[in-house]
Formats: sequence, structure tokens, C-alpha cells
Amino acid sequence: MTLYAKMALIGCGLIGSSIIHAARAAGVVGEVAVADSSESHRARVTALGFADIVTADPAAAAQDADLVVLATPILAMGEVAAAIAPVLKAGATVTDTGSVKTWVAETLGEALAQDVFLIPGHPVAGTEESGPDAGFASLFHNRWTILTPQRREDAAYLAAVERLTDFWLALGAKVELMDEKHHDLVLAVTSHLPHLIAYNIVGLAADVETVTEGEVMKFSAGGFRDFTRIAASDPIMWRDIFLTNKDAVLEILGRFVEDLQALSRSIRWAEGEKLEALFTRTRAIRMGIVAAGQESAAPNFGRDR
Amino acid sequence: MTLYAKMALIGCGLIGSSIIHAARAAGVVGEVAVADSSESHRARVTALGFADIVTADPAAAAQDADLVVLATPILAMGEVAAAIAPVLKAGATVTDTGSVKTWVAETLGEALAQDVFLIPGHPVAGTEESGPDAGFASLFHNRWTILTPQRREDAAYLAAVERLTDFWLALGAKVELMDEKHHDLVLAVTSHLPHLIAYNIVGLAADVETVTEGEVMKFSAGGFRDFTRIAASDPIMWRDIFLTNKDAVLEILGRFVEDLQALSRSIRWAEGEKLEALFTRTRAIRMGIVAAGQESAAPNFGRDR
Repeated sequence: MTLYAKMALIGCGLIGSSIIHAARAAGVVGEVAVADSSESHRARVTALGFADIVTADPAAAAQDADLVVLATPILAMGEVAAAIAPVLKAGATVTDTGSVKTWVAETLGEALAQDVFLIPGHPVAGTEESGPDAGFASLFHNRWTILTPQRREDAAYLAAVERLTDFWLALGAKVELMDEKHHDLVLAVTSHLPHLIAYNIVGLAADVETVTEGEVMKFSAGGFRDFTRIAASDPIMWRDIFLTNKDAVLEILGRFVEDLQALSRSIRWAEGEKLEALFTRTRAIRMGIVAAGQESAAPNFGRDR
Repeated sequence: MTLYAKMALIGCGLIGSSIIHAARAAGVVGEVAVADSSESHRARVTALGFADIVTADPAAAAQDADLVVLATPILAMGEVAAAIAPVLKAGATVTDTGSVKTWVAETLGEALAQDVFLIPGHPVAGTEESGPDAGFASLFHNRWTILTPQRREDAAYLAAVERLTDFWLALGAKVELMDEKHHDLVLAVTSHLPHLIAYNIVGLAADVETVTEGEVMKFSAGGFRDFTRIAASDPIMWRDIFLTNKDAVLEILGRFVEDLQALSRSIRWAEGEKLEALFTRTRAIRMGIVAAGQESAAPNFGRDR
């Protein structure tokens, strides 16, 4: 069943192209327009043939669209919103895929008119690949998409939220509605801090003078390799996440360093019981995640066994 | 070709049982004796039927052995060495599988006689599973095993190192010889610090009052899940690693926190270029690891000596 007669994707990387593949496979969209500022991305989208319209101009893509999905790096969204605001038709739904929601809600909220339904969103899915060639239809299968609706009670807005929920369900995702501030704290813990740490440790490994890069690569199976996969994520996308979710990230980072100093002290003073107690507790958390089935549905990129 | 007529495995968890499976598959050992202090482990080894002798007594297993492999948690090795020292036959090779080598070399070196060939070792391989049921013959395929021979130049010792190298090659591993202090620094970077950080962040996630455990599990696909896999590693094994590689771990950890504070400052002051530069650099390191084939499972038997 077609939910949106015309969908516009602004920014067509891994997430944007996967949304198009998945929406086409589910049969929930009619016409698909893509706007991307990158000439090479546009050339690839044209060659891959999954869009009806390919343009550099967000306004041209968003014209007459029933659903507009912003899938650019976060800091680019303000400019995109300003560009599309004048051409959006009344009753259009505007959503996004950014990993930070408070900043996006404020920025897009200021730019868009009230007769447009702004529903910020975040599909919690990804791979280490990027670009329009990386997309695939099953990326969102059994993954959570979080929507952070505005505080609006009008029936038309609530219907728009319902329709967007149906859209994500049709793409195979599970949907959760959440307050945007809470989203940003949860993701600071489960995603932003892990990425920051992975970037930091991979950078450090390259800097240790007495250990060669070859040695780091050879012996990365000892745990380091998992960090390199995370630290290969798109640099611009992640720069924007840290800059726009600054408060939550710094709060969680402060706690992380505090805990790490305590752990460091336990090692220095050979407090074996404390170490063992923490390591036993974290193992139980992993068992919970495996039992909850979060592992089985996950794509298994580059992992052994 | 049989390299060791009798092999004794002291401690039969994931690594110990995998060595037995792999050595039997390669046909490089005759009789296999297992000693394990855990009654349930002994019962499983007996039920699985991959050992000729199963005992609680390390000395009984090591008696007449040509190769003795210590695969217990590190801190247990001193006691094991003291127990087996009186019964070891002259010319026997003693090695281990611990992730720390300086402590092991010193502790075993003090306990064992000079007519025994002590060659500390470390197969850089593992899964999140543990116990004798978790072992499998291909665990070491295309993975590095590091040997840290003692400073002995006698021909018999050098021949023993050569034989142990052939043993690991036969098990599908690649072998590198290394100074034990250097090993401990390299592994502090590529394995010990990543584990410490994973334990720390998974513990922190469970402690954040306003984020539920259910939320952490649901949204773990954003990066956190990789950390939970690492943080599910065996608690006793890892406690011992941090206690016995204290100096290298604290040194690397100090640098890690220093770098993290700089990164924190870049976020606070919105230094986008600095963040982007680091994230771009770490991505290149990942590409190097993928290009070096560390990700592929392609077997590479015996060609990397």
C-alpha cells in the first residue's frame, strides 16, 4: 500500500539509499526524488537507477513531496531546511535520520512552517560502509527506529506520526517514540561514547612510538579489531554528532573517565576482587543482550565465527 | 608427523581444548593428557572423549610429557609450575598460552630446571565462549601465535623452539618470535586496553540512572554491542592479565585518558576540524587492516614463518 505518493531523500548515502531500496521493496512509496550535494553521489544514484529524479537542489526534490527525509550529516540540515521550507506543500511530513534529536528538532522547528509535520527520527542501524552503493533493503530489518514527535496534539499531526510509524514498520523496523532529550542521552551511552572511545584508542595505537603499525594490525584480533571497525565510521557524520550532542556526550564522557580512573587505581593496587566483580557483572549484561535476541538479527560484518 | 609423543594440557578451557582438537587434526601429537582443577571441566573433557588421560593433578598429566602447555588463568601458573617441576623429564618443552609474557617468563623460569625447555607463548585468538565445550580445531587458523623464547643459545634449546614453532604452524597459526617485554606492550595496546575500556563502558551503561537496561539493550546496535562482546570475556582470565601486566597497561591507559581529555576539550570548544582530522586518520588505519587481510579467513598455513 502506498503511504507516500512522492518521497524525497535529501542526502543519499548508506542510510538514504537503504531507505529507498527498502521503501521500494515494501511498495510504500510512489515517485522517489533524490537531492545530493555530491556530484559523484548523484552520478552513482543515476547509474544505479533507483530514483526517478536526481538533482543537486533540495527544493527541486522536495517540491510536491508527501514525505521528505533528511539523511545528510546533521550540521547540513539547517541549510537544507531553509532551502526546502518555501516549496513544501501543506501537510507534507518532514523527518530525518540523524543520531542527535534535540538539535535537529530545534533547528528544523525554527525553519519549517506549522502546516508541515515535522517528526524527527533516527534509524539505529548502519554498517562501516558509506555512499549510495552501500545501501541495501534489509538494513532496517528488526532494528529500532526512534521517532521523537513534537509536542503537538492536533489530529492531523498525530495521523502523520501514525503514518510515518507505519512507513518504518513496512521497512522492517521496530518503532519507538521518545522524548528527544532522552534519546540524546540514551544514544550518548549506546553509540556516541563508544564511537568516541574507538576513535581515541585507534588514534592512540597509531601514536605509540615503540609499537609499529604492522604489529597493531597483526595482533588486532585480541580485541582491537572491533574498535577499528567502529572507528572507520564516516568522519563528517560523526564530527556533527559530537558537535550537536555536546552536553550529553560530555556528561557521559566525564563519568566514563571517572570510572576508568577508579579501575586504573584497582589495577595499581592489585585489587583483584574489584576487577573480577566488574568483569563478572559486564558479562551478565552481554548475556542479557544475547538473550534479548539483539545479536541474532544483526548483520555480522567482518566478524569471525 | 608426530612432533610430541605425549602432550599435557594443564587447564582445559576454550584455548586448551582448541589446541587438542587442532593438534589431533594435524596429527602432530600422540597421547594427550589433561589436568584441570575444575570437576565440571574434567567431566566434560571425559564426556567429549578428546583426551587419553583426565586428572585433577598437573603432575600426573605432565609426567613423561614431551610438551606441557599451561592454559590456565595466569596467576594459577606459578602453582602449576611448582607442582610439575619435580616430575618433568629432561628435554621436555614447557609453554603456555597466557596473554602476558614477562610475568610468566619470570615465574616459570624460577620454578623450572634448566634441563627443561621453557618457551612462553601466546596464541592471539579467542571467542567470547569459554570452557572445554567451546574449543574447535580451526581457532588458530591464520591467527598469530607469539613465542617469547628465553635468552638461551644452546643448540638443544634452539631446536626446541624450532619444534614448537612447527607445532603451531601445523595447527594453522602464523608464528612470530618476540621479546617478552615488547609483547606485553604490544598486547597492552591491541588487547588489554580495549578490554579494559569495554569492561568500563559496559559497567557505566548499567549505572546510568536515567537510562534503563532495556534501552541499552535495544539500542546497542549503535556501537555498544561490539563492546559487550569484548566485555563478556572470562573474568578470572582478565583479572589476571591486568594484575600481571600492570606496568604496561597503566602506561597505555594513562596515554589513553590524556588523549581522551584532549578530545573532550575539542568537543567542548567545537573544534570541528580537529575531530574530523582524527576520525579521518582512524578510518585509514581500519582500511589498512582490511587491506592487510586480517579480516579474511583465508588459511595461510606455514607460509609466514
